[in-house]
Amino acid sequence: MKKDVLTIGGHEFSSRFILGSGKYNLDLIKAAVEYAQAQIITLAVRRANTKGNENILDYIPEGVTLLPNTSGARNAEEAVRIARLARELGCGDFVKVEVIHDSKYLLPDNYETIKATEILAKEGFVVMPYMHADLNVARDLVNAGAACIMPLASPIGSNKGLAAKEFIKILVDEIDLPIIVDAGIGRPSQACETMEMGAAAIMANTGIATAGDIPAMAGAFRKAIEAGREAYLSGLGRVLDKGAAASSPLTGFLEK
Amino acid sequence: MKKDVLTIGGHEFSSRFILGSGKYNLDLIKAAVEYAQAQIITLAVRRANTKGNENILDYIPEGVTLLPNTSGARNAEEAVRIARLARELGCGDFVKVEVIHDSKYLLPDNYETIKATEILAKEGFVVMPYMHADLNVARDLVNAGAACIMPLASPIGSNKGLAAKEFIKILVDEIDLPIIVDAGIGRPSQACETMEMGAAAIMANTGIATAGDIPAMAGAFRKAIEAGREAYLSGLGRVLDKGAAASSPLTGFLEK
Amino acid sequence: MKKDVLTIGGHEFSSRFILGSGKYNLDLIKAAVEYAQAQIITLAVRRANTKGNENILDYIPEGVTLLPNTSGARNAEEAVRIARLARELGCGDFVKVEVIHDSKYLLPDNYETIKATEILAKEGFVVMPYMHADLNVARDLVNAGAACIMPLASPIGSNKGLAAKEFIKILVDEIDLPIIVDAGIGRPSQACETMEMGAAAIMANTGIATAGDIPAMAGAFRKAIEAGREAYLSGLGRVLDKGAAASSPLTGFLEK
Amino acid sequence: MKKDVLTIGGHEFSSRFILGSGKYNLDLIKAAVEYAQAQIITLAVRRANTKGNENILDYIPEGVTLLPNTSGARNAEEAVRIARLARELGCGDFVKVEVIHDSKYLLPDNYETIKATEILAKEGFVVMPYMHADLNVARDLVNAGAACIMPLASPIGSNKGLAAKEFIKILVDEIDLPIIVDAGIGRPSQACETMEMGAAAIMANTGIATAGDIPAMAGAFRKAIEAGREAYLSGLGRVLDKGAAASSPLTGFLEK
Repeated sequence: MKKDVLTIGGHEFSSRFILGSGKYNLDLIKAAVEYAQAQIITLAVRRANTKGNENILDYIPEGVTLLPNTSGARNAEEAVRIARLARELGCGDFVKVEVIHDSKYLLPDNYETIKATEILAKEGFVVMPYMHADLNVARDLVNAGAACIMPLASPIGSNKGLAAKEFIKILVDEIDLPIIVDAGIGRPSQACETMEMGAAAIMANTGIATAGDIPAMAGAFRKAIEAGREAYLSGLGRVLDKGAAASSPLTGFLEK
Repeated sequence: MKKDVLTIGGHEFSSRFILGSGKYNLDLIKAAVEYAQAQIITLAVRRANTKGNENILDYIPEGVTLLPNTSGARNAEEAVRIARLARELGCGDFVKVEVIHDSKYLLPDNYETIKATEILAKEGFVVMPYMHADLNVARDLVNAGAACIMPLASPIGSNKGLAAKEFIKILVDEIDLPIIVDAGIGRPSQACETMEMGAAAIMANTGIATAGDIPAMAGAFRKAIEAGREAYLSGLGRVLDKGAAASSPLTGFLEK
Repeated sequence: MKKDVLTIGGHEFSSRFILGSGKYNLDLIKAAVEYAQAQIITLAVRRANTKGNENILDYIPEGVTLLPNTSGARNAEEAVRIARLARELGCGDFVKVEVIHDSKYLLPDNYETIKATEILAKEGFVVMPYMHADLNVARDLVNAGAACIMPLASPIGSNKGLAAKEFIKILVDEIDLPIIVDAGIGRPSQACETMEMGAAAIMANTGIATAGDIPAMAGAFRKAIEAGREAYLSGLGRVLDKGAAASSPLTGFLEK
Repeated sequence: MKKDVLTIGGHEFSSRFILGSGKYNLDLIKAAVEYAQAQIITLAVRRANTKGNENILDYIPEGVTLLPNTSGARNAEEAVRIARLARELGCGDFVKVEVIHDSKYLLPDNYETIKATEILAKEGFVVMPYMHADLNVARDLVNAGAACIMPLASPIGSNKGLAAKEFIKILVDEIDLPIIVDAGIGRPSQACETMEMGAAAIMANTGIATAGDIPAMAGAFRKAIEAGREAYLSGLGRVLDKGAAASSPLTGFLEK
């Protein structure tokens, strides 16, 4: 098999598991990264900016790409300011745009996200926009210069899985950028199914952070994501509408 | 983490993926076993008995436990005869009892299966009965001396996945023997979900045999099964009934 | 449309909603029967036998067929004794055979059910056996003289809906007797879906008894069951695998 | 029970079934309206404008409110022009705004829809906007003066059912206007489930138009919608997470 790489904004990654850093105990994050074998890890800019003793950056292994997010932004303007600040702080050119002003379901504002994406892409950022799965919006994001599309599976932190399944499938079919599913993936099996559908990568945090054993669950997600990717590339078998199909010879054995 | 082993009839296995051999091209089976890293592989006794040039046994790697099945048996008596023949042919003490006389859906006859299990267990076989997920029948199989319980997920060869999900969960909760889900698992994500529920192992054949790239799909199933097992042992995170839960700090960032 | 009747043991019914009486407050049962427009209502024989002031029979409207059940029976012999007692008490020839010895999930013992069915059918009862959806067992029940097959949708009283969906579909396809789905149907939409699949009738109790407004929910189930039946007879529309299909003229309007 | 009415823009309706007229043979539409007992029926303005012999208006019964839609509009401006034309043609003040420029999945453009809604509401229309279920957009539509919110269940004409279920539930919880689910509802059971969730009404067309017997299916949808509404008002019963709950007395019967 030829090398299978994920390309985002011209950068190549072999891992398809993006780890969120929001909900980890700092003591566990290094271990989780190791088990997850993630090459990209998100970071709330506020945390990078901490003056105190504990800085999340100290726990991120060498060679990992930081993905600062704009959490806290309630509109495009705030997202743009946070992104610029992240670059100034040395977080690099990648930015995950998230614009949220719905405090109960934490759903992204698709149109402020398009606006922020357009501005930041022009400034040379590798923009990864978090969005509610909507084909028209995804097309606008492509035109705005996004480097990938990051639809939510279900509300952040809910662990509810693929609530937007049919609409994510449409994005996979219609959009040429990588579709990276972010938010709501609560179990390895859901991550695996999402990858089988042709998603390019998975971002997860809560599914791991709320598990009993965080490093073990990080490893489980990694394997499930790899399994889903390999299954997608391999080509899934057909599903019978009705009936069954024998896998072993069923009749006449004893007569012979 | 302490070593996690699957124990069947006193024998220990580190792999939780049992590979069916019915539907492979012989050219591919060795590669599939290697990718699957299976330690148990099923075998229709008829194939072990072939006089011709191609014998499936030649393709099975060293160290793999053969699991002859009684496919072709339409009642307990025929299953018992096939099992004894398998032992005479040198296939060892393991036997997967399957009794099928429904030619369209290929569903097992639970009561003939109980009868065959009782006879064979008394003769010292390690009996692995294939059954339709039914708690009362599973209890009878335990009493009959079964070494594990093998409920179907959906009809053989259908790739329809976990149609019997709720009833398999009941078996996992109520039965002390390993629950090994066999038949109908068509995708790695389904295998992963089954393991997350607490199944002890997965047997698959058609999901792999009908894939575009058989060795790659065998590897994908292996990883997905491992992921599901690790997730189960780790403890899955809670699922929100409603709402969302932030993983990054969401408000007040820019005010500071 | 020609008259659509449900025939059980040679008796014709226009209603396809069988109402369970186990969980109602007696004050509400008459109202519920009226709203449900049920023509068959189940009755635990023990209740028919009550010596006290309140007798459930006083609440059953004229013209309704009583269906005594054998609840409390743990094996075929006990079921047969209860059925005979019901006939002696004047409950008529109909009997719902249920044999349960699993105290947590209350799942029927399929094989004791077959035995009781065979004995009672020979004694002239109209036997309606409650069972775990299993095609081989359903065929045995047909041979034993059952007047219909009553598979459970999910465990009694759980309101979990169509957990056995795929296996009930198989019964509908393969068995010539009416398939009457009993247990677990918790909402009108589930009753409707079951009827759309081709089930002949629905029996419900807990979905109604645990509702906020019992008579209103009885009416809702009735309508949903009728809707599902009519949809089944009408022939359901095709489902698109992908894409969409305009229902209104979409383009070129303003150019004209 | 007090009278349960659907209020849209100050107008009261007792029916909660809005019938689409796009896909019917004209010969069948009158019969379908009668069976559906719909009080609102959609109409592509182009059809109202027909010069030929067959005019759909001739088939609409007295007392039915016409709901002209803006199908064919690719942006807000075109939608506004079509709405104004409909009013000039005598179709009244109601208008269903749909703006679609995605030719494969026919998904609405949420932001052009907001713009058109704002303009038309100011002009005194009762605006019913068709949209992709997105809480932030729904809030903007409320602010723009919409009379209700019409999220799609799945792509138009697909009969795929409640693909947007979780996101429609959020709208029901968070938005004070009636949520009228439109597009994708292919079967009465899906309509019923949608109403059980608290939707205010259902609009359907293809599910009926592609049925074998159109008037019968129209009647089936009507009953299912009424059933779902009554179940919602009644209060659905609890669902057990595990186990079962007896509805009849189960033990000790024969000992007495």
